[in-house]
Amino acid sequence: MNNYFDYAASTPISQHVLEAMKPWETDNFANASSAHQAGRASYQAIQQARELIADKIGALPSEIIFTSGASEANNLALKGLAFKHLDKKGHIITSSIEHKCILNTCAFLESIGFDVTYLDPDSQGRISAESVQEAVRKNTVLISIHHVNNELGTIQPIEAFGAIAFEHNILFHTDAAQSFCKCDIDVDDMDIDMLSLSGHKIYGPKGIGALYVRNARDSELVPLIHGGGQEAGLRGGTSPTPLIVGLAAAVEHYPTEPTPDEQNFLAAIKQFACERNGSAYVVPTTWSVTFTSDHEVKRFTSNYPWLISQGSACNALSNVASHVLTAIGMTEEVARRTYRISLPPYRINEK
Amino acid sequence: MNNYFDYAASTPISQHVLEAMKPWETDNFANASSAHQAGRASYQAIQQARELIADKIGALPSEIIFTSGASEANNLALKGLAFKHLDKKGHIITSSIEHKCILNTCAFLESIGFDVTYLDPDSQGRISAESVQEAVRKNTVLISIHHVNNELGTIQPIEAFGAIAFEHNILFHTDAAQSFCKCDIDVDDMDIDMLSLSGHKIYGPKGIGALYVRNARDSELVPLIHGGGQEAGLRGGTSPTPLIVGLAAAVEHYPTEPTPDEQNFLAAIKQFACERNGSAYVVPTTWSVTFTSDHEVKRFTSNYPWLISQGSACNALSNVASHVLTAIGMTEEVARRTYRISLPPYRINEK
Ligand SMILES: Cc1ncc(COP(=O)(O)O)c(C=O)c1O
Ligand SMILES: Cc1ncc(COP(=O)(O)O)c(C=O)c1O
Repeated sequence: MNNYFDYAASTPISQHVLEAMKPWETDNFANASSAHQAGRASYQAIQQARELIADKIGALPSEIIFTSGASEANNLALKGLAFKHLDKKGHIITSSIEHKCILNTCAFLESIGFDVTYLDPDSQGRISAESVQEAVRKNTVLISIHHVNNELGTIQPIEAFGAIAFEHNILFHTDAAQSFCKCDIDVDDMDIDMLSLSGHKIYGPKGIGALYVRNARDSELVPLIHGGGQEAGLRGGTSPTPLIVGLAAAVEHYPTEPTPDEQNFLAAIKQFACERNGSAYVVPTTWSVTFTSDHEVKRFTSNYPWLISQGSACNALSNVASHVLTAIGMTEEVARRTYRISLPPYRINEK
Repeated sequence: MNNYFDYAASTPISQHVLEAMKPWETDNFANASSAHQAGRASYQAIQQARELIADKIGALPSEIIFTSGASEANNLALKGLAFKHLDKKGHIITSSIEHKCILNTCAFLESIGFDVTYLDPDSQGRISAESVQEAVRKNTVLISIHHVNNELGTIQPIEAFGAIAFEHNILFHTDAAQSFCKCDIDVDDMDIDMLSLSGHKIYGPKGIGALYVRNARDSELVPLIHGGGQEAGLRGGTSPTPLIVGLAAAVEHYPTEPTPDEQNFLAAIKQFACERNGSAYVVPTTWSVTFTSDHEVKRFTSNYPWLISQGSACNALSNVASHVLTAIGMTEEVARRTYRISLPPYRINEK
């Protein structure tokens, strides 16, 4: 798929990852909960993966809870905490440009009695620390704001959100599906209490992700999936050893350099009359581009028949402007001239 | 692992399955929600898989909701229904020998105000239809009883449970993780409203399973994982195309004959003084065996250093008798002489 530029929707699985998974698919397929030696070996492989992933964000291995992806991780963070507060309920601060899995979870929590504040971004797609500060209430239990936006590529000032949360003794969760491995993350420096990540955004398998939970064992999060005591009791289900080992291999082998696609794209896009949205604080590989006219759109799509998206994959099949583009002030008409072109991601050197 | 006899805990992934998955890992890795042609092809592959799996249990493709496994499917069935009844709460009938993911979910639902009846089995590990009938109350919203027990191999009379549920206009859910593909299942004939299944018990991948939901779109189940509208809105998260295609391939290529392991096992076990538990109604590949003395246990384990379990994998790491063995009346001492030996599963001809 050499005309594929939808890497923010999903990445290919790398050869490193496929090779790391193989022994756990064929040679040792034991259940990691089994007490016999094959089960113990599978368990050890998972523990090694856990260490590697924890290390990447400055966490402890015991703080990594494997899930089926970032959607489940986000649901676990929000509902797990909300159900802990089911008696008194409480207030949650998030943004209007979160991924649908956060927004739909919040709508559900509102339906059972929680209050949710949805902060709007500025025209560049940034949520301001001031707006977070102003939204804090006495009964705020959680601030959940994503790190990098999946449609715009905008980087949010999450250290500032973390500091506000810390100061008010509120938990801070961030959806890092679009930033994990791409951006430097240290959960202590950034005062992050929970963080969601996903395998298939970083050249790993689909169907695996994780939630970082500070002091997971003492967190009293209510499991989303009750089970046989796996994952510190916070997530039941037979551990998918191949997927977990694959996730760790993806982290280990995450690229540090752009592919030639990036230069090719930059040369191509220059030929068209268009503007990049949210350009002040963005990752280099996710471009939200608004063409100046339908004519330019046509010229672009016929010259470059790329596999790209309008908005995110999850909104792809509906015909209305995405909630993200609307939130930064776009009309339907302008949104229709807007495309997300996302290039092979790699580690950004932020300093 | 030719000394592995823990197939009820997990099976190897078959070559058929690995080959079916490969194109979706390397050639087309698009997000099945993406609107472009690669995304549409991935979506089509998922739809084909859905049809094949639905067909296996006499369901419609639109009634199959893919999950990360049977644990998640069980949680979705019970919590999804309970959250629909969160205002009035209600009563649930289950058994004391369900998998931990059901029992722990029920304990959680009790903690938020639901009533749960846990029916005990007879000494053969069977739940009687009479006990189900007697447990029905005016406010019973769900009967959830598994099909085949994971520790004993006992087959439950689920058609009878389904008939009782139907008669009283109560929903019937069955955890079919240990029976799907092994036993014939027809959701209409058996009056099943929801059914959980898992990939890694049938030579498919770990990390994938499904919940059958009768008239899923109209079921008003509350999603466990809110997301971007995938799976009829009942289960969010990027669809793991390789795992889903792999699950369907596992169903398609499920073996119809025992391997020579079965004869070898029968010859081996004959040499020891032991009794098979629940022997009246069991699948041929799951054996719960109690040796008559510690001496026999030693003789067996030293002659046959097999990878087997005491109880299920989930209970494997604790030192107490499993809740299943206790429920059929075993003392700790007898349970210590009891092993689960589980052979490569295949389709049973029940007629
Ligand atoms: C910001 C963001 N959050 C969450 C998700 C969901 O991740 P997953 O597909 O692993 O459930 C995605 C991508 O789909 C995303 O871009
Ligand atoms: C009866 C039963 N239910 C549920 C499960 C859980 O399935 P999964 O590992 O797919 O979550 C298992 C096996 O672990 C099982 O044997």
